[in-house]
Amino acid sequence: MPVTNLVSRVRAEAAAALVAFPSQLTLLVGVSGGPDSLCLADALAHVSGTRIVLAHLNHQLRGAEADADAQHVRAFAEARGLAVVIECQDVAALARQSQRSIELAAREARYAFLAQAAREHNTQFVAVAHHADDQAETVLFRMLRGAGTEGLRAMQQRAPLPGAPALMLLRPLLRITRKEIEHYCADLGIVTRHDASNDLRDATRNRIRHEVMPLLQEINPGVKQVLARLADSAAADAEVIAYAVEKALTHCVSQTRDSFTVLRAAWAQLPVGLQRGVLRACVRRLRPEQGVTDLNFSAIEEARDVLLSSVRQAEIALMAEIRIDVDREHFVMRRHDPPANEVAHAA
Amino acid sequence: MPVTNLVSRVRAEAAAALVAFPSQLTLLVGVSGGPDSLCLADALAHVSGTRIVLAHLNHQLRGAEADADAQHVRAFAEARGLAVVIECQDVAALARQSQRSIELAAREARYAFLAQAAREHNTQFVAVAHHADDQAETVLFRMLRGAGTEGLRAMQQRAPLPGAPALMLLRPLLRITRKEIEHYCADLGIVTRHDASNDLRDATRNRIRHEVMPLLQEINPGVKQVLARLADSAAADAEVIAYAVEKALTHCVSQTRDSFTVLRAAWAQLPVGLQRGVLRACVRRLRPEQGVTDLNFSAIEEARDVLLSSVRQAEIALMAEIRIDVDREHFVMRRHDPPANEVAHAA
Repeated sequence: MPVTNLVSRVRAEAAAALVAFPSQLTLLVGVSGGPDSLCLADALAHVSGTRIVLAHLNHQLRGAEADADAQHVRAFAEARGLAVVIECQDVAALARQSQRSIELAAREARYAFLAQAAREHNTQFVAVAHHADDQAETVLFRMLRGAGTEGLRAMQQRAPLPGAPALMLLRPLLRITRKEIEHYCADLGIVTRHDASNDLRDATRNRIRHEVMPLLQEINPGVKQVLARLADSAAADAEVIAYAVEKALTHCVSQTRDSFTVLRAAWAQLPVGLQRGVLRACVRRLRPEQGVTDLNFSAIEEARDVLLSSVRQAEIALMAEIRIDVDREHFVMRRHDPPANEVAHAA
Repeated sequence: MPVTNLVSRVRAEAAAALVAFPSQLTLLVGVSGGPDSLCLADALAHVSGTRIVLAHLNHQLRGAEADADAQHVRAFAEARGLAVVIECQDVAALARQSQRSIELAAREARYAFLAQAAREHNTQFVAVAHHADDQAETVLFRMLRGAGTEGLRAMQQRAPLPGAPALMLLRPLLRITRKEIEHYCADLGIVTRHDASNDLRDATRNRIRHEVMPLLQEINPGVKQVLARLADSAAADAEVIAYAVEKALTHCVSQTRDSFTVLRAAWAQLPVGLQRGVLRACVRRLRPEQGVTDLNFSAIEEARDVLLSSVRQAEIALMAEIRIDVDREHFVMRRHDPPANEVAHAA
């Protein structure tokens, strides 16, 4: 088959996604047998110097159909001389055991399988086939859930692999649309299977795909690109904000063994977003294992009200295990795990 | 009528919007005669120490109905002992003359009228009745137009008055929903007119209100609040980014009379969003009257590619009137208005 412009472009995008990495790279590629992942596998297989290992998980949710998917992936790999790992897991049983939805259990099983297969093949790099349409839907999904501007970053081209942060998840097709992927497969005569992973989407994601997106496309036919760009712009913003928070920390916060002391006046002069960012960053460092997802926005606002007031002494419980002791010139944030004798900690 | 909890809350919100300003404040309030603006006028009239002047523009688009709106506003003001300014403008004729849409001509006429009335009453402060539903719709509208994260800020509680930046536009109801406004009016027996300004909305805004929003509400009933909060979060982000850009400017940029010299290595170490921010800020300062809305994103990215490369000398036309001269250690941005003799400017 002749290589069309579109095929060249998708392959160039795949190559660009790997450009920052060692040239003799082994790359694990998650494949379902559907068009998205076979396009990805084909495009990556054409990046010179890269060794591709396909990885397919049979979720055992669709009987003979699922077995046929696995065989299709095996045949695809063999025709191209690519290594392939295929594994079976009873996802329905996993969901029952963990009392979670099939979608969630399948997602977790898939990432755990990819992490395991990557380790077995001595690589840190795992590629998956999320594309621009997925990204646009994810932006709307996060927006509807109220995730704020940070959530609008949606999926990153490079991110830690969920559940295995030492491994890197790559999404080389994040700027390629579903339509382009279908054309890619058609142009090269790649035979694809129905993408079973789409059947595992939750109800909200399905409504976004089948109801919200078509309506938005009537208003702006370029809405998917607009949303994908919005994710890029939110990601760039988040990076700037993280950088500004770091600068603010060096400027007005000093760290002791188990606490952070903040210069109250310097902190108060920061923009509101940085005031919040500094508080959040201190919490994140005081309890690195939990993160800040359970840190309530209104708790931060109430703390800010006190810290910005003329109050000369106060004690704030920012959350169960984080306390802020306020004096005239400073406030000290420290971890305050429920003690045997709480009275001993009173100021 | 007894003051309900809702009425107290809306009045407290109105009072909070004025808290940063002088206590003997004169405030011009734009009123159409519809529920939103009469709620706003009533709530502001209850903020002690504030002198309210109502301002109503008859757009002369709906004949006797429009005259009745004006009379309704006059009666509302007289019943409360409030000053009122009422003016007529032939908006249809203005639209024809300027060859613009009725919506656009009406908007411009309204803001020009408010600015003029504010000046005549010796105040810098103008309040309008945009509420949380308007804000949510504006977020979606901006998002659909591809305005990026900066556009998601949507409307601000305080902003320069369009066309008269020395005056301040206040939106005290931005966190109050349309439903709450209707309850406010019902609770106090305030008789309202059909809000004619809603008839002047463009087609996209109407589709957002009548098709997109109801669909999103089916998925998440709290979507309006979610979108309004997203606007707050985008506004806080934008403030942090502006602050970080300022810091970066002092750190790696020096200004001469008509140019900005940037330390190339220091600039290259900034996060991507700040690299872009610094370029944009320099453009904004080099041509303060035009802003950066016509500065193409891809032009910035192409310039970044050169500036981040190992190129030792280059000349970049960032836009028609902004040139960047690159040497090994610096790049110099300057205004480059089309000269009589272009050769004289060549390096």
